[in-house]
Amino acid sequence: MGKVSKNKRIGVITKILTENPNTLYTLNYFTEKFNCAKSTLSEDIDVIEEFFEEYQLGKIESFSGASGGIIYQPKVSTDQIENVKLELCQKIKEESRLMPGGYLYMNDIFYEPGMAYRIGKALANHFLDQPIDYVVTIETKGIPLALMTARILNKPMVVVRKSSRLTEGTAIQMNYITGSSKTIKTMSLAKKAIEKGSKIVFIDDFMKAGGTAKGIIDLMNEFEAEVVGIGVVMATKHPEKKLVDDFCYLVELEDLYDNEKEIKVLPNNTL
Amino acid sequence: MGKVSKNKRIGVITKILTENPNTLYTLNYFTEKFNCAKSTLSEDIDVIEEFFEEYQLGKIESFSGASGGIIYQPKVSTDQIENVKLELCQKIKEESRLMPGGYLYMNDIFYEPGMAYRIGKALANHFLDQPIDYVVTIETKGIPLALMTARILNKPMVVVRKSSRLTEGTAIQMNYITGSSKTIKTMSLAKKAIEKGSKIVFIDDFMKAGGTAKGIIDLMNEFEAEVVGIGVVMATKHPEKKLVDDFCYLVELEDLYDNEKEIKVLPNNTL
Repeated sequence: MGKVSKNKRIGVITKILTENPNTLYTLNYFTEKFNCAKSTLSEDIDVIEEFFEEYQLGKIESFSGASGGIIYQPKVSTDQIENVKLELCQKIKEESRLMPGGYLYMNDIFYEPGMAYRIGKALANHFLDQPIDYVVTIETKGIPLALMTARILNKPMVVVRKSSRLTEGTAIQMNYITGSSKTIKTMSLAKKAIEKGSKIVFIDDFMKAGGTAKGIIDLMNEFEAEVVGIGVVMATKHPEKKLVDDFCYLVELEDLYDNEKEIKVLPNNTL
Repeated sequence: MGKVSKNKRIGVITKILTENPNTLYTLNYFTEKFNCAKSTLSEDIDVIEEFFEEYQLGKIESFSGASGGIIYQPKVSTDQIENVKLELCQKIKEESRLMPGGYLYMNDIFYEPGMAYRIGKALANHFLDQPIDYVVTIETKGIPLALMTARILNKPMVVVRKSSRLTEGTAIQMNYITGSSKTIKTMSLAKKAIEKGSKIVFIDDFMKAGGTAKGIIDLMNEFEAEVVGIGVVMATKHPEKKLVDDFCYLVELEDLYDNEKEIKVLPNNTL
């Protein structure tokens, strides 16, 4: 195979890294692919690092030496997170979302793959620098957001069920009390879903009082796993004191009263 | 802003296109971004088209003229689809997946974001060339696969619920009969989830007799929408005659008998 032009090498490397976030590629992988010298490749990587930074496309980290390699971290800038929050607020405010009982119809937002990806990036940003083993969510609406967060972190997603499934083998089933309506609910997870000693990030669409998040922490304790981070898209302003202390959220929702038409939602500026 | 080097332009364009499959970018978007002439950009795009093809990275389509632009179609080659099928077979065959009752534990496969993405690419490949409005699935296990398929096609995902949700407003609820166990189940979908006259691709993890897929076709009829494609990851060999005629699947599973230890699964070579 002949020489590959620098343009092409840079393009191909960029394509592969972008499609495989948080995945280590050895330098050998690329020198063999392009039949080029390590020094040539290093120069390519310098260019890639540069324009990723210049155009805020994320962060390229490269390690030299025998176990050297290159990894794409989809870091986002403060501006980019701000834009996701504003985009969310704008969409959530649409009056047609108001359902009887004060519920908000949000499926079209969370189930739009591009939006789910941008949300996943914004949420994952908090957890990029710490060791994580699984991204956990509870069915159903949080799944797309958790999957995209997991894709960015390059970790498996685990979906806690709301009822036990015969098809998933032995499970740990747990009752928990929702913080807002004080009703008893059930969560269940196959025993083999999570290994002992794992570190968990919990991702969900919505947090009111935090009862579900608290339940997930308890459930993970049963698996001898630890929740090291919690991220939700939307948190309600009230109750101000949630059942979990440490969580990040993108936008804040004020209470919806009966017959009210205006949805008050603000970007979370403390993030 | 000064001139941007060709290397960087090619890298940045590749990054943006890869992250936004099936999304049209005007040439102006890039000429403004790089402060370069249209002719310069056209040369860049030629290079990008070339290496995408050479390295089987998908297809770049460009349109010239006033409404000109560039679009990244994540097409996969026959070899790449074959690899996904083989990877699936290898994983599914692991003995530890066998659950009591002959069920297979597959969550770790479908919930691994990289795998879900590769499956999504393989399934989406069939539908890249036709107009599609929504990718529909039914909760829960198909969601990650449907989301990734939707991401490739750049279309919204819609999740049919197994029970009606008060929080989603007026819904169409329908009973259907599973083809294999002949039990009555319920599916429900918010009326505002799908517009009249839409074209639908239905994606799921598994098909036995096809009762669920048949149910989805009927439900979509209620929405005056048409199912134009069905894709599942795994279909059982029996019954050979399914309740739906036209569907694509990646691997085929032979019947599991009680006490049997061997999982017989084969790539679908008719695909």
